[in-house]
Amino acid sequence: MGISLTLKDIFAPARDEAIDSSFLDTDFYKLPMGYFVWRNPEYRNVEVTFELIIRDPKIKLAKVIPEDVLREQLDASRKVQLTSAEASFVGGMTLSDNKTPIIPGNYLAELCKMDLPGYSLETTEDSQYRLRFTGPWWKVKWWEIKGMKIVSELFYYHLIKYFELSEFEVVALYTKMIQILHQKINFLKKFPQVKYMLFDTRRRHSLSWQEFVMWTMRSEIPNQCLGSSNVKLSMRHGSANPFGTNAHGLPMVKACLAGDDVEKIKSAQYEIVEEWYDVFGEELSIMLIDTFGTKQFLDNAPEWMAHKYKGCRPDSMNPDTATDMMVKWWEKHGVDPKTKLILPSDGLDVESMITHHERNKGKVGTVSFGWGTMAGNDCRDAWPRESGCPFFRPFSMVCKVVEANGVPAVKLSDNPKKATGDPKRVEFFKKIFGTEGSKSQEVVV
Amino acid sequence: MGISLTLKDIFAPARDEAIDSSFLDTDFYKLPMGYFVWRNPEYRNVEVTFELIIRDPKIKLAKVIPEDVLREQLDASRKVQLTSAEASFVGGMTLSDNKTPIIPGNYLAELCKMDLPGYSLETTEDSQYRLRFTGPWWKVKWWEIKGMKIVSELFYYHLIKYFELSEFEVVALYTKMIQILHQKINFLKKFPQVKYMLFDTRRRHSLSWQEFVMWTMRSEIPNQCLGSSNVKLSMRHGSANPFGTNAHGLPMVKACLAGDDVEKIKSAQYEIVEEWYDVFGEELSIMLIDTFGTKQFLDNAPEWMAHKYKGCRPDSMNPDTATDMMVKWWEKHGVDPKTKLILPSDGLDVESMITHHERNKGKVGTVSFGWGTMAGNDCRDAWPRESGCPFFRPFSMVCKVVEANGVPAVKLSDNPKKATGDPKRVEFFKKIFGTEGSKSQEVVV
Repeated sequence: MGISLTLKDIFAPARDEAIDSSFLDTDFYKLPMGYFVWRNPEYRNVEVTFELIIRDPKIKLAKVIPEDVLREQLDASRKVQLTSAEASFVGGMTLSDNKTPIIPGNYLAELCKMDLPGYSLETTEDSQYRLRFTGPWWKVKWWEIKGMKIVSELFYYHLIKYFELSEFEVVALYTKMIQILHQKINFLKKFPQVKYMLFDTRRRHSLSWQEFVMWTMRSEIPNQCLGSSNVKLSMRHGSANPFGTNAHGLPMVKACLAGDDVEKIKSAQYEIVEEWYDVFGEELSIMLIDTFGTKQFLDNAPEWMAHKYKGCRPDSMNPDTATDMMVKWWEKHGVDPKTKLILPSDGLDVESMITHHERNKGKVGTVSFGWGTMAGNDCRDAWPRESGCPFFRPFSMVCKVVEANGVPAVKLSDNPKKATGDPKRVEFFKKIFGTEGSKSQEVVV
Repeated sequence: MGISLTLKDIFAPARDEAIDSSFLDTDFYKLPMGYFVWRNPEYRNVEVTFELIIRDPKIKLAKVIPEDVLREQLDASRKVQLTSAEASFVGGMTLSDNKTPIIPGNYLAELCKMDLPGYSLETTEDSQYRLRFTGPWWKVKWWEIKGMKIVSELFYYHLIKYFELSEFEVVALYTKMIQILHQKINFLKKFPQVKYMLFDTRRRHSLSWQEFVMWTMRSEIPNQCLGSSNVKLSMRHGSANPFGTNAHGLPMVKACLAGDDVEKIKSAQYEIVEEWYDVFGEELSIMLIDTFGTKQFLDNAPEWMAHKYKGCRPDSMNPDTATDMMVKWWEKHGVDPKTKLILPSDGLDVESMITHHERNKGKVGTVSFGWGTMAGNDCRDAWPRESGCPFFRPFSMVCKVVEANGVPAVKLSDNPKKATGDPKRVEFFKKIFGTEGSKSQEVVV
């Protein structure tokens, strides 16, 4: 590892090989979430559909990535199963008691044998791919990161092919990205209190580039870069366990299972947080509560959550506003915010992490960050031709649950621009949850 | 080659291996000059001393390069002999008749067996190395490029060691150099008429970096980068023959052989040019005439030289002034300057090449350039720490004849700052040749 990584290596995976070469080349949170779904007979086999959503209308995937190439990569990814060595690594991670595995062995044994459901792929009239994955929840959920990382890597690689960059222009491009990385690290070194985990798998440039970024940050600022959400890279690098919590899919599906029962829809978000704590306890007790709006969640949340949950991950609200809101909520329930953690993770970069940390560090116990796309794929200014390329940049893409048990899934979020779901059902949910605290903000990634 | 070259490779040669791994890892002009000296019994065994001269007082080699390391590299270099395959490559280059070898086989056979003379190395009080090479001219002359490239590579490598750059800082440094190279190439692409040969062996960063620069320029702008002076790299790359003419050593030694005979000293510079033409004819007929001042040379040069020599290489006078002076000289002798070549080679960079080309292209037939240190070792802005490093840059270093046959050697040059030699003898020469046309200019490399 290290500088023995060649410039060719950094870009190689998207060239000739399968992009997906390990079941663990995914975010850690998929594992506890996967176990959470699998262990509950009410959840395990619910039929769920995920869909790739490109939020940025200027990015036309079908103009860049050839359909047969995309199919080949997706087909290859279906064949990648969890190995016994990978299962050992995951199985060895324990809760804070140092003995209870976070992910039990019987579930890992099932994962080793699991077949991934298929996908459906169509090209729309506006040169977009409509990529959907349908199947039993415990299985189909693994497509989320797989689908995104494959599309993301193929997009950059085929953009370079499309513009016929020369071999040296490719070198110039990636050395510029290294320079950008170098500037970020030099900047961060001046703020040694700013600490983060890398959340950069889904919209990555390539696996090798992600690994290079991780190696570099763990070598240069090991006390600031605490590790990665990527399980495979954490296993390979070997210096820190992967990290992650949970995602919006849980309350979204739970709300689908409630059908049109308003009371059940309302309580779904709390039940998930409660069930999660029952399964993983203190260790993974970081709340993600913006699925239907943070404000309404906190207003009606049970008091015990303020005491037991060690922190919160704001993902669609300005982290300053979110911190103030959380502090108020903790104080309302007689909890000292200085014992709690805030983990912002929404489109962060060096400047925003520093700003938020400086402002909020005195208000809560710990401010850490989930630093994603701008850590692992900041290629905005790296195009090697003076003409520039308006598409060679990170873009807003998600892979979300769109339906469960035949009912459309909804995410309202604190930022209407990050909302997803069938418009009629979204309106229905807005009536249920209100929109207090909701504020529109530009979505970069 | 190409991007399969790793960042580690680029810097590897200076790390653990011998820097000098091939007898042909030198400038092409050493071969015709070497043959020129060897073939003439009056020249062959003259005892000559070369000395490494650091013109820049801020660069203290002995503070940076450990003496034992320098000795090891010089000792290793002594053992490197010309191989039969290398001799074949050199022997296959012919004059414009396509049959007469430029370098005859009997000389190459001698070179394959030649033992390199030793060296003397002392550390001076001001932390400089006094590195001298003494021996028969035809042998000792090979030390010039060997000595310089070894010192140059060791200097940068040990500077990095001295400041304990991290592995990633080294990556950041070399990717910055790639970015600088990329900018130069993008700039040159806008001026496709600007053509040059790479003259970047002596003050290079490392062999791998030199090779990377050559590969890049030959791939990106093959109609502008016409090749390299480095014989080994030309052989390995295989796309263009190496190129070179001759250097100041010839008239300098010839003037030593003249002792104190003023007439003989005066005629030495012309005799060399005449002998050179007799041996190599049209093919290598590019004059280097600034050894004792260009103006005085031209004023008294025989008319036939204006007709027969295809061009001139100004090396210490502003190329615009030199071009005007040459044009006047050619016209005085009834020669159309539009049939002639000017090849400036003094401390050039992209901007100066473009400027000189634009100004002089209509005046002579061809303006080409010998682009050296700023092509192959522009590390001025690459230091990865914000504090900067005032020593990590190209610096002015030469390895010159200082004595021949017991007589001190002198170079006056058109720029007094590039003059070398014993001060008394320099004054003596100034009286003989005058200083008309001499103008002081800052020497960067």
